[in-house]
Amino acid sequence: MTEIRRGAVATRRPTGTPPERHGAIGTQREKEPGESSDGHEAAILLSESRASVDPELRSALASLPESMRRIALYHFGWQHADGTPAADNAGKAIRPALVLTAATALGGSAARAAAGRAAAAVELVHNFTLLHDDVMDRDATRRHRPTAWAVFGDADAILAGDALQALALRLLAADPHPASAAAAIRLSDCVMELCEGQHADTAMERRPPTEVTLDETLVMAEAKTGALLGCACALGALYAGAATEEVEALDAFGRQAGLAFQLIDDVIGIWGDPRHTGKPAGADLAARKKSLPVVAALTSGTPAAAELAELYAAPYEDQEDLERTALAVERAGGRDWAQAQAADRMARAMQELARAVPEPEAAGGLLALAEFVTRRST
Amino acid sequence: MTEIRRGAVATRRPTGTPPERHGAIGTQREKEPGESSDGHEAAILLSESRASVDPELRSALASLPESMRRIALYHFGWQHADGTPAADNAGKAIRPALVLTAATALGGSAARAAAGRAAAAVELVHNFTLLHDDVMDRDATRRHRPTAWAVFGDADAILAGDALQALALRLLAADPHPASAAAAIRLSDCVMELCEGQHADTAMERRPPTEVTLDETLVMAEAKTGALLGCACALGALYAGAATEEVEALDAFGRQAGLAFQLIDDVIGIWGDPRHTGKPAGADLAARKKSLPVVAALTSGTPAAAELAELYAAPYEDQEDLERTALAVERAGGRDWAQAQAADRMARAMQELARAVPEPEAAGGLLALAEFVTRRST
Repeated sequence: MTEIRRGAVATRRPTGTPPERHGAIGTQREKEPGESSDGHEAAILLSESRASVDPELRSALASLPESMRRIALYHFGWQHADGTPAADNAGKAIRPALVLTAATALGGSAARAAAGRAAAAVELVHNFTLLHDDVMDRDATRRHRPTAWAVFGDADAILAGDALQALALRLLAADPHPASAAAAIRLSDCVMELCEGQHADTAMERRPPTEVTLDETLVMAEAKTGALLGCACALGALYAGAATEEVEALDAFGRQAGLAFQLIDDVIGIWGDPRHTGKPAGADLAARKKSLPVVAALTSGTPAAAELAELYAAPYEDQEDLERTALAVERAGGRDWAQAQAADRMARAMQELARAVPEPEAAGGLLALAEFVTRRST
Repeated sequence: MTEIRRGAVATRRPTGTPPERHGAIGTQREKEPGESSDGHEAAILLSESRASVDPELRSALASLPESMRRIALYHFGWQHADGTPAADNAGKAIRPALVLTAATALGGSAARAAAGRAAAAVELVHNFTLLHDDVMDRDATRRHRPTAWAVFGDADAILAGDALQALALRLLAADPHPASAAAAIRLSDCVMELCEGQHADTAMERRPPTEVTLDETLVMAEAKTGALLGCACALGALYAGAATEEVEALDAFGRQAGLAFQLIDDVIGIWGDPRHTGKPAGADLAARKKSLPVVAALTSGTPAAAELAELYAAPYEDQEDLERTALAVERAGGRDWAQAQAADRMARAMQELARAVPEPEAAGGLLALAEFVTRRST
């Protein structure tokens, strides 16, 4: 479904601006007039970010006690379960890229160079929550491999998550940069919000579908997905010595982009292509997940909403059930709503970005990453 | 079994020293010549510590997101499961008392006053590990109440633990004291060691009893119990501006006292009085736990060791089985070993204490707390 992944979000670019020169190191190339953002810049940013964050991450993981290190290296995709080295499979590391790109946007290459530990800390927090979420959600597969709990058991997956959280905050505590304490405060606040978001998610999944409101689903999605993307951008701004207003604007940028991402991800979760996403289309419906398009559909007051509620009240049966359910979500307006909402969130993200980083040239890297996350599943 | 809880540890007091005047605030009373330490001073220290740490803790917990706050307040014994206030049941808070008493010993009342957040942070970390350990160990009761996972489910207990860890490190990140970053580094290192200790514990419980060595059991006990007591003392020293050598000596003091505590606690777990400990005598044996006296007995090479191995190879049957098992541990020398080892660890703790705090007067508070923990179960 290329048109969803590529076309769902209409980014508002400032008109009349000259071809952009992006601030990120190594991406100072001129764009051809009329060249659209095609994910190429984002790919460069992500790969440059990995190149600088991976050594930080690997050295941090090396400092873990042996038992925790083994589980963490497996989870990061750097080792097999038996401890032998594995081909790198550690995900795209979008959050560290946001830290480094935000630092570059507001403070240039010096800020970027200073923010390496903060970038690693954010990625460690992200992975600590993945380890724990997989235990809670009983998800047996992540990045095409068995999850840590499926391999090492619940206790070790919980402990490895605990150790990664400690390691993340240790990196910041040991960082002599003047922004490190403020960064640690923001990152721990973010962890508490992530916990709240995951709690709301699991609690909502236990409630009858018709009792869940769209507002609380959006709040949950912002806490669960937007908060850490916002925090990543805010940490980059802090390490650039930015003013409070800019830090907050970049936090809001990341949150709105994160919500846009979640909306698109939910659409892909219903109608997406499993070859591209690693997630079978319809899996969320089969699990009767209260994803954003589904809740929008259920609360639409349409006849299709009633049909959907009936389908969701019974367990998943077969492929035909899945198709009927997807059609009901669509007829109740869930798909259109999610796409419009995603575009709206991206527009808000762009506004916040322009507030924090008025020069289009400097903002280009963050724009490219936001476009990237709203088109692909992490 | 009063003689175990009171008499197991023969503390080496410096001879010829004058009656002690303890440094802790509010406990500057002269000891009568020949008066033994009877837990009275420790009780005063603990109650004074609670009085200063509880407001810090309550204000920290109040800052949690609502869902996490509810679970945390239940776990701390300050609320019932329905959110109504409960009679205080939050445990003795020995770790914050160690932070404050160590700060007092090395830096007087100014250091004590400055170390309030660090004391609260240590207690938050302790409680985060309790929340998670209870999930992993499937322990359904703590402090005579159902555990958090038994009331709120595994997911919420895991999340509340995660949030408490974040809150602990946030307290230190927001603390303007010059020692706060060093304290955060020590506390996160300690969390990683606690994780390693809990991992070793759960891994050992899955192995055949005869394959577990005494050395690895001691290392596990030090990581699981000694590390946080040592860290508490070290944080107090850091907040007193102590030199590295004093900080390390107080860490070692706490670790050795923690090991002594664990040894005594294990003895109580086999032969103790349930009315005093809240833990039925023999529960550890019934669960075939590889506690320190049991591993000492199993590795003793005595005929009783073989008998014990045979008993441990089969599941628990009845009270008679329990009595035979306890007798086998005793005849294999497990009880004597544990008591001698506890006394030895306490002697080492006293040596470290004397290195860090040479004046008996200033060291008195920490000595009283060490004696307290090695006589009672927390």
